[in-house]
Amino acid sequence: MVGKPAGPLLPPEESEAAMFAPICLDHNATTPLDPEVREAMLPWLGGRFGNASSRHEYGRAARMAIDEARARVAEAVNAHPTEVIFTSGGSEANNLFLKGAAARLKAGVLALGAIEHPCVRQPARQLRQSGWTVRELAVDAAGRIDSAAFTAVLAERPRLVSVMLANNETGVVQDVARLAAQVRAAGGWMHTDAVQAFGKLPVDFRSLGVHGMSLSAHKVNGPVGAGALIVDKRVELAPLVAGGGQERDLRSGTENVLAIVGFGKACQLAAARQADRAAVLRGLQARLDAGLTGLGATIFSAGAERLPNTTFFALPGIDGETLVGKLDRAGFAVASGSACSSAHPEPSPTLLAMGVTPECARAAVRVSLGSGNTGQDVDGFLEAIAQIVDHLRNLTAMAVGVADAA
Amino acid sequence: MVGKPAGPLLPPEESEAAMFAPICLDHNATTPLDPEVREAMLPWLGGRFGNASSRHEYGRAARMAIDEARARVAEAVNAHPTEVIFTSGGSEANNLFLKGAAARLKAGVLALGAIEHPCVRQPARQLRQSGWTVRELAVDAAGRIDSAAFTAVLAERPRLVSVMLANNETGVVQDVARLAAQVRAAGGWMHTDAVQAFGKLPVDFRSLGVHGMSLSAHKVNGPVGAGALIVDKRVELAPLVAGGGQERDLRSGTENVLAIVGFGKACQLAAARQADRAAVLRGLQARLDAGLTGLGATIFSAGAERLPNTTFFALPGIDGETLVGKLDRAGFAVASGSACSSAHPEPSPTLLAMGVTPECARAAVRVSLGSGNTGQDVDGFLEAIAQIVDHLRNLTAMAVGVADAA
Repeated sequence: MVGKPAGPLLPPEESEAAMFAPICLDHNATTPLDPEVREAMLPWLGGRFGNASSRHEYGRAARMAIDEARARVAEAVNAHPTEVIFTSGGSEANNLFLKGAAARLKAGVLALGAIEHPCVRQPARQLRQSGWTVRELAVDAAGRIDSAAFTAVLAERPRLVSVMLANNETGVVQDVARLAAQVRAAGGWMHTDAVQAFGKLPVDFRSLGVHGMSLSAHKVNGPVGAGALIVDKRVELAPLVAGGGQERDLRSGTENVLAIVGFGKACQLAAARQADRAAVLRGLQARLDAGLTGLGATIFSAGAERLPNTTFFALPGIDGETLVGKLDRAGFAVASGSACSSAHPEPSPTLLAMGVTPECARAAVRVSLGSGNTGQDVDGFLEAIAQIVDHLRNLTAMAVGVADAA
Repeated sequence: MVGKPAGPLLPPEESEAAMFAPICLDHNATTPLDPEVREAMLPWLGGRFGNASSRHEYGRAARMAIDEARARVAEAVNAHPTEVIFTSGGSEANNLFLKGAAARLKAGVLALGAIEHPCVRQPARQLRQSGWTVRELAVDAAGRIDSAAFTAVLAERPRLVSVMLANNETGVVQDVARLAAQVRAAGGWMHTDAVQAFGKLPVDFRSLGVHGMSLSAHKVNGPVGAGALIVDKRVELAPLVAGGGQERDLRSGTENVLAIVGFGKACQLAAARQADRAAVLRGLQARLDAGLTGLGATIFSAGAERLPNTTFFALPGIDGETLVGKLDRAGFAVASGSACSSAHPEPSPTLLAMGVTPECARAAVRVSLGSGNTGQDVDGFLEAIAQIVDHLRNLTAMAVGVADAA
């Protein structure tokens, strides 16, 4: 058992493993709450409460807290506070941009990367029923948008284009600023899902030149339940959640002050710490990649610019799901495929789009490092995986031996 | 200054009023967090975190917590756990039912009460653009759905009908079970917004016989950021937020475990305490109504069944906004019109639909009592309002006197 002294993850009686909290190497799924974020949130779990639409003192306190958070989010990504629309998270932000813009435009071509998150691919699929033509932008073997495919789709004058800034599985980074300039020149609206990139790379809404950009709090050591769509003032959107008119009539519903306050603080910290954190993560990633390569692993998107925390790899002949289960029991939390779609254990669509064989894709395991991880964590992980791989290969060899002897 | 010793509502330097937390008589806008709910939530602000879709220990702990909350919500309203779809709140639940069902049906007639919340009226308005015909069901002078109007609309075979269980402003209660039976018989799907009713009245999904029912956590001393659509398994819905496939593919996005856990606990407490709490509130309401009537107030919907906590009234000749401001300074938080639409200070559409004159509607003030309120709060409020009314009437008399003398 490898692990750290446990926080209150599970009551002591639940398992022996409760003596140790697993080492989390799955920060692209979610991240622990930063203590400073927690401090900012606690008053809103205490005496503070209020509906920000109310005109009395309770309401005004909630309104002030939301305004402050909005300013922090805007500053962290170089946007104007009026461009920040708070949502319940990144999935809602992506749905809001795509469906909200589509509702205001004449149906036409909607182009998206072939490796977008399901919360971009699924709304696009829904829009087909309203007459939209969906084009998937092919990626090369490293997972980057293919230039020729992009140029071909641009010739169709897409009204909407969505390409993620960094992929949740491979960590591959797209040149969104260049793509956005081309989309603008072709008269379309460009959106980017920056949920995974923010906090790991510098993210500048103005420099990217996109019309819309999605963010999520819980990927940057903030709480679940808050995200934002940063949206250019010239873009008209129909609300997904219509009603009382909150968020400039683009997202109704009583504001989640608790989560929004945490999101604001998390954005402030993420932007301030990004450079230092990325340097540390980059060092850990190099150590991890070298160790995995030494064990015979293939690292996906190794030839492209990747997030400093993400390593998506396969050990030939070893099933990814099996490996994740064994690593979990050894005290390491990692993912096979993307966490969001782990309920459907099909091979990763991202890898298939990159031309990886289904057999190899089934071996894929994702390590995503985060703020708390150390060199010791990486070394321990490499040790554990080496033992598991040895064990599995011995079992296979024995099985082959038995078969040969029979 | 009337008030209670302050919690950490505002930093001390912000105002003299910070020495006292105002007495909240605005529980239909939002409610303070119950201490037991806070206890249930705190571990999720501490060492516990996890994406419930992840297959490692962190993910499983999140999944278990969500399942437990789902069972609690279901039990509180007599539904099956598989019928509970968690959303970010009541507004989203209402939008999900209406737009989600409309997307699966051939466009037809959508009928809704004339006094529905904006988060029912606005999605209905949006659906007009997809070919739906919207019928508003007229209400009588007390705010109850008019039987003749209802029968007339039923003859049009509405595919979707939405009538709230209790109104947020007047507190008027509709006979949803009877209406639902008629809608079912006519082949339509019936939805009810039970956000204000739950916790104040017994709410039984099965007995109501509706196809969909919306709930919100922060109206029952739970956190903002969680709500649910309770939905009959035979109803097919398209997701509003599409993506990773969470919530039986009806609501994608990483689950807000923190808020969902709080929601589950709040529902459990709300159901267990409903009868006792309603009895106490009913007593306070009678005291309040008698006092207001003594001051010459009109109480809206006085002749109908109302929520035990809600009194919507007008003092002839006294502007509602002015009164709310003066009460705020005297240490009492109340609402004019509904909090959600206080950003648009037009006369309450609910009152206009009841045939109240715009002039009288502009005088409307809502008191909504909650768990912490006492007879002393009500008496203090009546004393404060009497003084304010005296003062305003004297000013008016003086102004008239000056005008007469001139």
